[in-house]
Amino acid sequence: MARVVVDVMLKPEILDPQGQAVQRALPRLGFTGIADVRQGKRFELELEGPVDEAALVRIREAAETFLANTVIEDFTVRVEDGQ
Amino acid sequence: MARVVVDVMLKPEILDPQGQAVQRALPRLGFTGIADVRQGKRFELELEGPVDEAALVRIREAAETFLANTVIEDFTVRVEDGQ
Repeated sequence: MARVVVDVMLKPEILDPQGQAVQRALPRLGFTGIADVRQGKRFELELEGPVDEAALVRIREAAETFLANTVIEDFTVRVEDGQ
Repeated sequence: MARVVVDVMLKPEILDPQGQAVQRALPRLGFTGIADVRQGKRFELELEGPVDEAALVRIREAAETFLANTVIEDFTVRVEDGQ
């Protein structure tokens, strides 16, 4: 079974309060040197068939219409290696 | 500035209702052939200094104690290429 990963992140110009909360908490916990944190979503999709171009087109369509809100989010689709 | 990505996913044996909701919705929306969906979190950390082994050790520590709940979640830390 092949795995395709869809990463969904807020666009850079959109405020990310979750990421900011993490970023502000890190120094208090002793972790310094981290300039910025952004938090997003990761979807792991297990495909029944082969991961060919047609499958990836369908997954990009699903990501665009359903997994991501493309008004405020960017997404990337990639096949995960080493499965 | 170097980017390190921390992916946090529920352990395989832990029920993932968010992923299940996505999986069940996909066929209704016309996307078939997807056997399983898991949903997790993706953190993008922008480091001020170089991404050396010491920095990665610190980030793994932060991921283990703070970004992930290791009772129910697994995490991976990796340097993002092509920045």
